[in-house]
Formats: sequence, C-alpha cells, structure tokens
Amino acid sequence: VSRVLLTGATGFIGRHVLAALLDAGHDVHALSRDEASGAAGAATWHRADLTRAGESERVVAAVAPEALVHMAWYVEHGAYWHARENVVWTEATLRLLREFVAAGGGRAVLAGTCAEYEWSRERYDERTSPLAPATMYGVAKDATRRVAERLLADAGVELAWGRIFMPYGPHEGDRRLLSSVIAALLAGEEVAVSEGTHVRDFIYVEDVARAFAAILGSAVLGPINVATGSGHSIRELVELAAAQIGRPELVRWGSVPPREGDPPRLVADVRRLAEEVGFEPSVGLREGVGRTVAWWRSRPR
Amino acid sequence: VSRVLLTGATGFIGRHVLAALLDAGHDVHALSRDEASGAAGAATWHRADLTRAGESERVVAAVAPEALVHMAWYVEHGAYWHARENVVWTEATLRLLREFVAAGGGRAVLAGTCAEYEWSRERYDERTSPLAPATMYGVAKDATRRVAERLLADAGVELAWGRIFMPYGPHEGDRRLLSSVIAALLAGEEVAVSEGTHVRDFIYVEDVARAFAAILGSAVLGPINVATGSGHSIRELVELAAAQIGRPELVRWGSVPPREGDPPRLVADVRRLAEEVGFEPSVGLREGVGRTVAWWRSRPR
Repeated sequence: VSRVLLTGATGFIGRHVLAALLDAGHDVHALSRDEASGAAGAATWHRADLTRAGESERVVAAVAPEALVHMAWYVEHGAYWHARENVVWTEATLRLLREFVAAGGGRAVLAGTCAEYEWSRERYDERTSPLAPATMYGVAKDATRRVAERLLADAGVELAWGRIFMPYGPHEGDRRLLSSVIAALLAGEEVAVSEGTHVRDFIYVEDVARAFAAILGSAVLGPINVATGSGHSIRELVELAAAQIGRPELVRWGSVPPREGDPPRLVADVRRLAEEVGFEPSVGLREGVGRTVAWWRSRPR
Repeated sequence: VSRVLLTGATGFIGRHVLAALLDAGHDVHALSRDEASGAAGAATWHRADLTRAGESERVVAAVAPEALVHMAWYVEHGAYWHARENVVWTEATLRLLREFVAAGGGRAVLAGTCAEYEWSRERYDERTSPLAPATMYGVAKDATRRVAERLLADAGVELAWGRIFMPYGPHEGDRRLLSSVIAALLAGEEVAVSEGTHVRDFIYVEDVARAFAAILGSAVLGPINVATGSGHSIRELVELAAAQIGRPELVRWGSVPPREGDPPRLVADVRRLAEEVGFEPSVGLREGVGRTVAWWRSRPR
C-alpha cells in the first residue's frame, strides 16, 4: 500500500485504474486536467494540466508520491496517431518523471502502447520483437520510454512500462470503433464498417486497469505487454455487439476502407504478464462486449 | 542564404558554427543564455534560456527563422554523460522544434553525438551501425532524434542530424582532456593521464563548424557523422601537445585509469559527409593541436 499519484484519472482507462488502485488499498492522489468528475470519493483529487510549466512540480511537491501511475496522454480519436501533441506529452512526461525522481519516488508504472513495435509480426513479445513505431504516437511513446528507463535506472527508481494493446469498454470515446457501433445500433441507425478482417488483441478496460494495479504491486521492471494473448477480428467484435443489441442487419460491412497503415494482426505474447506479475485477464470478449452494451443502454442520453 | 536561428552560439562548438554560418553569408540570429560575448558583430544576438517555458516561443516568433542550427545542450565536463540535465535538454529541444515547425521553418540541423551508437564496432556508419547508447547523454540525444525525425517529416520540414565524434580546439572547456593538458604544460606543471591507448576520431572544432554549415547548405537528411574518418590514440594527441610545448617530461602516463565504460575505439565512417555533402575536414591532428596550443599561449590569463 503506497501513496500513489495517478495521472489521467478521469480518462477512459485512468478512471478504471483509479478504481483498481483504490480496491488494492492505496492512498490514491488522482490528477486530472478537468474538474474531478465525481468518481470514487476515496481518492484525493488534484487539478493540474501537466503540459503547463510548473504544474508537475506543484503537484509532486504537494503529494510527495511514493509511486506514480502515469496514464495521461493525448488521445483525441483519429488525431492522436499523428498529432504534434504527442511531442507535447513526451515533454510533459519527462518533466513529471524528473519531478517524481527528485522528490524521492520509488516506483513508476507508465502507459506504453503496442504501437511501439514494428508492425510486422504474428505475435509481439517484450524481449525479442523489434521496435520500429510507424506513427508519431508510437515514436513519442517509444522515445519517452527510452529516456525514462535510463533516467529512473540512474536514480535507483523502479520503472515498469505497460504496453497496452486494444482496450475497449465503458467510457471509451464516442467516436472509437466499438462505442460508435453500439451507439448507432442502439439508436436504430445503420453503421458503416470495414470488412473487419484485421485481428486485434482486444482487452476489456477493467482488465487493463487491474493489470496496471497488479504491475504496480509487483517487482517487474521494463516493458510488459498488457493484453489477453488472444486475437479476434474486428468483425467478431462488431458481430458480438450487433447480436447482443439484436440489430445485425444495420451493419454495412465493407462500406469503409481499413485505415491506411493498419497492420493485419496485433496480438501480444502475455507470458511476462502471466508469469512475472501473476495476472490474467478475466473478462472474455463476449462478456466484455455485453458489459459495454449494458453500460451504453444505461447511460444517460 | 537563409535567416538562420543558431542556438548555443557562445558554446565551444557553437561559436565556431556562428563564424562558419556568417562566412557562408547567412543572416544569423545567434542565441545564448549568457550575455552575447563579443563574438562576430554581423550576427543578430538574442538572449534566451531555452530550458525555460515560453522562451523558444518568444525567440522563434521574433526571428521567424527559415533554418535552425541547434547546438545548445548541457555539456558540463564530467557531469554531462550521466546528468539529468540531458532530460531537460530533450524537453527543451522538442519544444524548440515544435515552435520552429509551427512558425514555418524549412530546414533544421541538430547536433547529435557518436554516443548514440552501440560502442562495439571498429567503425560507425549511419545506416548499418546499431544504436544502443550507453549513457544518459547518448540516450537523450538518440530519443530526441527519434521524435525530431518524425515530427519534422510529418510537417514537411527537412532535418539533418550531425553526429559529432571527438571535437577539440580553442575555447574547449578548461577541464576537458586537451585543454587541461595544454594548460598544465604551459604552466610547467605535471599532468596525470591514462595510458592513452583508446583511439578516437578527433576533429578540429573549426572543421566541425564548417561541416555543420555545409550540411545546412546541402540537401542531406537524417543522421550524418561529423568526423574525419581517421583514428588516433589519446596518447598521440597528448604527445603532439607536449612536443609542441616542449615539455614531454611533465606527462605522467598511466597515473589515472581510463574512464569506466569508455570504448577502446570510436572512429567514424565519413563517406556520407564526403559524398553527399561534399565536405572534408582540412585541419589534421598535428595542425589542429598546434593551433590549439597557439590559442592557449595567446589567451589572456
């Protein structure tokens, strides 16, 4: 149990990480650029924009965190793959880490991405798969990790770097794939999708969050895939949602092309997560999609 | 001929780059954290600390540079290999590049380092030698380059990255190898050195500066070694200085160990510089050491 500074605590993944850290009994100091949005009351909230000068310094001084879980980044749908804001967040993350180290922090867990890998493999593992990010997002995360690993190692501070594959679930942005499909089908509208042949390692967002809490509580160092190890096509994902909503006829397959540069297959080797952290995801794709549909049904319009 | 923003313009290498850019006829806007120190009057001087918020923005807005030559970094002798200031300069450099791109800049040339390479080879070339920096300095420069290449490529801005090997010459820091040897011998004091067996690609600082001016004027993109292609032992360098000063008996060989982690050999492949930029260094080691000794003799104490 530690005093943990959590960034991005109102974000899609971060809000679930907040719940998982509280469940684990940590003294969580939750950070958000926005007003704290009424999430779990057991956390201490701090409002800060980490991209602004002096903000990391102020918050780290106020919290004196023993541990850091850094989920904040620029994630605007569609834009984030190539946006310059990725560079802003590289700078902001390095600044935050310098402050954390200078304040005597002991362990940091940061959000990485499968986009750090060279997208050319059947399966990706942390030790042998080549790194050659194809996007600004992947380049910025990869470069951030390179500097972070050296900075924290030299300071005697532990660093784990969770490479998240394809998270989905409640609170995902409205314009992202599963959210937009569910919203359209619930409204009785047609939805245009690609042929959906690309295979992804979809992981339910609460499993991502529990994995990060488990990684924080473990002694693992360096990059570690946060994924299920199972590949499913985008078609399977959409079909599950459409079946559960009961409107499969509204899906217009092949009416949009896949996004340029998207690799056919992104599936993780998860032995490190299983063996070194002892964590296995517990929510399968059918169950996860069901929970996401239920959340959308119950969501205030 | 361009309007060039030059950073680090009062530094060891930067002051020589300033002269080379003025020689080439550019409209040079020279930047320094310190008071402009009376260097060539043909430049327009700006005082700024790029590690402080808002300074890059202010200077880039004032200059509206067509080209950027970025030589500024943290270079405190002994400390810079492992200092956290390398992270500060990664952040500062990325911020400067964002401002340069946003202001419509067209071509940037940045100072890289041979410390980006995995120190394990007979010779290093830009295309095939593996990158695995062994120091914080090397990691920070390498990560900066990775982000810079993507950021500028996405913005349609040219980037060349000059990997400097072992520069020496007038105005080098007093505590660095050749400076400290010359200063001691001129003062008639003994000087403690290692056995000096390590081989380096020493390049006279004015050749480094002319190479950067030539790279700016070329169309070359990406990493390019700035070196001579010739290896000389540290012993040769020190012996040349001692012979020219006439006090070889004051050198205490082997009285200090080589710095831990120093590779035995660091020599560049310079075909890219010769063939794609058309630049060859013109000052040999004997001549360069002679000029450096002469500068020390004439230097006000």
